[in-house]
Amino acid sequence: MIKINSLIFLIPFIGFFSLLYAVKKILWILKQDEGNSKMKEISSYIENGAKSFLKAEYKVFVYFIFIFSIGLFLLSYIDKHTSPLIVLSFITGSFFSAFAGFIGMRVSTKANVRTTQAARNSLKNAFDIAFSGGVVMGISVTSIAIFGLSILLIFFLFLFFPNSFNYNNKNNLLFVVELLTGFSFGAEAIALFSRVGGGIYTKAADIGADLVGKIEQDIPEDDVRNPAVIADNVGDNVGDIAGMGADLFGSFIATILAAMVLGCEIDTINIDNFEGVSAVLLPLFMCSFGILISIFSNFFIKINKNNNIYYMLNKGNFICIILNFIFSFFLIKFLLPNNLSIRNYYFTSQDVFYSASIGLLIGFLISIITEYFTSTERYPVNFIIKQSLTGHATNIIAGLSIGMFSTALPVILFSIGIFLSFYFSGFYGVAMSSVGMMTTTAMQLSIDAFGPIADNAGGIAEMSNLNKEVRERTDILDSVGNTTAATGKGFAIASAALTSLALFAAFIKITGIKGINIYNPLVLSGLFLGSMIPFLFSALTINAVGLAAMKMVNEVRRQFREIPGIMEYKSKPLYDNCITISTKASLKFMILPGLLSIIPPVLIGFIFGGEVLGSFLIGLTVSGVLMATFQSNTGGAWDNVKKSFEKGVYVDGEFLKKGSDAHKASITGDTVGDPLKDTSGPSINILIKLSSIVSLIIAHFISI
Amino acid sequence: MIKINSLIFLIPFIGFFSLLYAVKKILWILKQDEGNSKMKEISSYIENGAKSFLKAEYKVFVYFIFIFSIGLFLLSYIDKHTSPLIVLSFITGSFFSAFAGFIGMRVSTKANVRTTQAARNSLKNAFDIAFSGGVVMGISVTSIAIFGLSILLIFFLFLFFPNSFNYNNKNNLLFVVELLTGFSFGAEAIALFSRVGGGIYTKAADIGADLVGKIEQDIPEDDVRNPAVIADNVGDNVGDIAGMGADLFGSFIATILAAMVLGCEIDTINIDNFEGVSAVLLPLFMCSFGILISIFSNFFIKINKNNNIYYMLNKGNFICIILNFIFSFFLIKFLLPNNLSIRNYYFTSQDVFYSASIGLLIGFLISIITEYFTSTERYPVNFIIKQSLTGHATNIIAGLSIGMFSTALPVILFSIGIFLSFYFSGFYGVAMSSVGMMTTTAMQLSIDAFGPIADNAGGIAEMSNLNKEVRERTDILDSVGNTTAATGKGFAIASAALTSLALFAAFIKITGIKGINIYNPLVLSGLFLGSMIPFLFSALTINAVGLAAMKMVNEVRRQFREIPGIMEYKSKPLYDNCITISTKASLKFMILPGLLSIIPPVLIGFIFGGEVLGSFLIGLTVSGVLMATFQSNTGGAWDNVKKSFEKGVYVDGEFLKKGSDAHKASITGDTVGDPLKDTSGPSINILIKLSSIVSLIIAHFISI
Repeated sequence: MIKINSLIFLIPFIGFFSLLYAVKKILWILKQDEGNSKMKEISSYIENGAKSFLKAEYKVFVYFIFIFSIGLFLLSYIDKHTSPLIVLSFITGSFFSAFAGFIGMRVSTKANVRTTQAARNSLKNAFDIAFSGGVVMGISVTSIAIFGLSILLIFFLFLFFPNSFNYNNKNNLLFVVELLTGFSFGAEAIALFSRVGGGIYTKAADIGADLVGKIEQDIPEDDVRNPAVIADNVGDNVGDIAGMGADLFGSFIATILAAMVLGCEIDTINIDNFEGVSAVLLPLFMCSFGILISIFSNFFIKINKNNNIYYMLNKGNFICIILNFIFSFFLIKFLLPNNLSIRNYYFTSQDVFYSASIGLLIGFLISIITEYFTSTERYPVNFIIKQSLTGHATNIIAGLSIGMFSTALPVILFSIGIFLSFYFSGFYGVAMSSVGMMTTTAMQLSIDAFGPIADNAGGIAEMSNLNKEVRERTDILDSVGNTTAATGKGFAIASAALTSLALFAAFIKITGIKGINIYNPLVLSGLFLGSMIPFLFSALTINAVGLAAMKMVNEVRRQFREIPGIMEYKSKPLYDNCITISTKASLKFMILPGLLSIIPPVLIGFIFGGEVLGSFLIGLTVSGVLMATFQSNTGGAWDNVKKSFEKGVYVDGEFLKKGSDAHKASITGDTVGDPLKDTSGPSINILIKLSSIVSLIIAHFISI
Repeated sequence: MIKINSLIFLIPFIGFFSLLYAVKKILWILKQDEGNSKMKEISSYIENGAKSFLKAEYKVFVYFIFIFSIGLFLLSYIDKHTSPLIVLSFITGSFFSAFAGFIGMRVSTKANVRTTQAARNSLKNAFDIAFSGGVVMGISVTSIAIFGLSILLIFFLFLFFPNSFNYNNKNNLLFVVELLTGFSFGAEAIALFSRVGGGIYTKAADIGADLVGKIEQDIPEDDVRNPAVIADNVGDNVGDIAGMGADLFGSFIATILAAMVLGCEIDTINIDNFEGVSAVLLPLFMCSFGILISIFSNFFIKINKNNNIYYMLNKGNFICIILNFIFSFFLIKFLLPNNLSIRNYYFTSQDVFYSASIGLLIGFLISIITEYFTSTERYPVNFIIKQSLTGHATNIIAGLSIGMFSTALPVILFSIGIFLSFYFSGFYGVAMSSVGMMTTTAMQLSIDAFGPIADNAGGIAEMSNLNKEVRERTDILDSVGNTTAATGKGFAIASAALTSLALFAAFIKITGIKGINIYNPLVLSGLFLGSMIPFLFSALTINAVGLAAMKMVNEVRRQFREIPGIMEYKSKPLYDNCITISTKASLKFMILPGLLSIIPPVLIGFIFGGEVLGSFLIGLTVSGVLMATFQSNTGGAWDNVKKSFEKGVYVDGEFLKKGSDAHKASITGDTVGDPLKDTSGPSINILIKLSSIVSLIIAHFISI
């Protein structure tokens, strides 16, 4: 007999150990050379801009946490099922989520300038630093999640059942696991605000910098004369690093939690002290081992020659997937009894392994599909390139059509995935397939976060007037980063979809409803309303970017007009004004979309009950997955169409390059795509998850 | 006791009488002056172009009808519930649908030039002819539908139950009503091809004419030198008249049919010879009286002074709504017994009246909402106008955001409508609310079809070099037509949504399934797949327009390049080449979207059964309503933004007009919006209904 008491302590230990590894990486990065004084100056602007945004954002968070803590406390006061300690969970989750974002951003703003400096020597050195920055992000986000979640679990177990540690009593265990939903709620709520706020910040700055700087004043990207240039570079950190990190931090926790809730329902044939609850702890174990495997797989990512970077990253990712596949097999065999059942659905531990593998596979395939639709090498982007020859309008039409088309395969894949993972091991299987996918989170995030660091490094190189060679090297990194950013978005959507379905299954369990019959008109109305939310949400976030960008455009125009000598490098533009505009706009406009994720499920749940709320959630999830995929892929494709023209591209024998009419048309597409792919699209992921978690939290109240 | 035998014969009589009224209107139009020889020449180009398109399209229809007749015959051969006579229904429905489109187009191509001629005298005369053309369309479409449906019903009753006319036996009646689904299938399938084909035709020609003629060659709209100008004018008839007519023809029939199927389920407390089946016949009666009311209301639409046209149309529409409201009260009271029930849901005839009124109200409110989001007088369009000042990209971003935002209110309205109409009288109420809305179809269509006629009349005025005054008069009519076109689209979407829900309820009845539980993963997968179809469908249709427009652009460019003297009016462009391109492209590209509406439901139904198909349908309907609303309103708003700049508009004190950068940005938006609002958006309506009807037809096979 394995001693469960000792095994459960293994998990925070793994979290802690991984975190130490991240710290070691941080120390290594900090030791690297920061370059000359000009570089230091510019990077300090970016760093301070990021800090000031975080400071302002955290202030809003404090209010938010305070208000919702009171709400949660009142809920727990009314409901005898829930301990007021859920407030503690919530605050911890919020705090850890913010902390994970903080670490990621601090490190990326340290790594960027060091990457630039390293690029003065070699591509290899530059890559090492940028990727280390990404690894810090990937490892710290996941290990903080594992550490926080498991420590809280142990604490609650110890607190409520001090004598027996009696968590083979499944009702006790469920009680504790439900308390952890507060943790997930906190994490996801902070994630939403970070994603939306960060997305508005970065795109307002980006569009403002481009429209006035590049188009009106005809100065290059990342030119120090552009007043919005620092805000733009801050935005890369705020949006792409902190936002993405918070997103996956939330998915990671929500997935584990949903699988734990369903695990509480598992009936094992031979219940003994350990096996009875092992299904609950399995997700924690798999995800902990996933972090270790990611750390191990990182060692295979080493570049020697140029241009093999993308191949290397893929190799590392692939090793990580294979190892997770193998390890999950043994973990499942080791932890689970042979025969299990959930709600009279019988299956074996082998079946659970199949379900988990399906998730792993879906994550992989969705990345490939996303790559296909957004890569410059493939048909879709080339199709849009061709359609750009007839102007702005046909560029937009082609992009919209490609984006809508790109939803088909992922949805078919999800449908098959949902069905098969359920077929193998019931709703536990659906949740476990999500867990399977999330085991590679650390690796995905490392690959993803290195891109914006390289992007920033290129910006610093440009602004510091470094050798052309340096910028060329960072550009190689940046272009790989663009591809990984697109595939990363695919992974994030897939994980959000599976996570939400798992949360949905957990929600059904806790409400105790028997099913959701959409032939009931009220339930059907719920589905209608839920499906509409992502459209409304997108409208709000896209519009926020548009409004903030207009302010930015006016400020940048004003500076060029009123401050003499900017164009001749004689006077410095007022970077801080632009930073303030982005900061204020993002904080102001993130509130409404945030509330749209929280208020409607609560209202619908309390007024119409669990079945209607359930169909509302499903409508929201399905329509959200479609809208997120559509928007991310459309934007990603447009971005690469523009990049193709900037490099120069042959179309029907004609060579088209920067400055051509087709290139101008492609800039329109890229600008339209910006808020779609970097603000609205990725935020929908969190909208989906957050609405599901909120519903899970109130599930007790609306249970039948 | 009322004699049912005599009452049922009243319906085809009403249909026939109304049709006579339409014929009278046609004869009146034909008697009007056609104008000078130049006008006759140009209008004959348009007429011949339209004829040649219809001829080519009907050829495709024949193949399609032949293949699907065989399919239906085989189905009826296997299934003992269905008579092979369903093939007859199908062929009749297809034929009548094509015939209704044919009449509409023939009349509109006669009315356009006569409107131009009348505009040389006065606005009043011009309006009278254009609106008479619209009335012919509205009355003939609805009366052909009523006539065809009721004749077929009587024929089948007589054929199968010759002795007793025993249709107070509800099983007999259901048997016959189910045969009529073939009629609806035929009508809807032809409608889909007409809508998609017509939409591709008109937009390919429109974009081709605009991009090369207006932008590259800088000649005005509707200039005879533009090779695509005739195709463009043909397109207005093909797309806006025939397409819209076929769409509402389909909705009208499908709605009546769905309500009849559900009527077969009604249990009345006091069954006697008539009351037992009156719930089945009520929809036919209400819609027949609706036609008469529309004819009556038309007499109130008379203009005296300029500019009160929109007000007059609204007045006529409002009278029509009020009269339908009143008449439906008496019809329902007269035909239905006081107490009824469906599936143990008890209600009174008064409740049925409430349900029907809700539909009438929803149709009205949706039109108002659509008007708000697309009118030049309101906030949304002015918001986009403002955002156009910063260029193409911000114009597009603002439009997308407004379009997404515009889905919220209609969806909330639908949700409330579905719930309330069910609350009053169960699923029969949902269907009857749809019937309530459709009673105003003839009026809606009259108002809607007059716009393209006026548009064409303006084109002919321009091409015939008539007095400027003439064009100004037709422009007044055209601008009213643009508003009514937008509100008409709102009505079409609303009717498609309610119709599909009614068909869905009928589908459930015939399959005999007890409910659709989306907590079942396979059912959930069905929902996912169904929701994806409108995205894929939109991608295909939008893309088709893009591809066809590119061909058109190349041909128009070629003609300007290779035919000397076009610009100097010395040689005529080859109009026929452009007509051929639009015709071929539309016929080629309508196939795939057409099959996408028919094949997936059949496959899913036969492989996975009724419950999965049901959730597939709901997913398709919900996502389709959202996408149709989004696309129609976005496109409509962009269109009016462009029109505002062409008229000239003050923004923040600055006067912006034709030729300004903001105007150019607005042309991009308008061009992007063209396929969204005139091809993909309206076609989705039919996609939704057609998939539902196909499912209803195969419902017997997949019943449990």
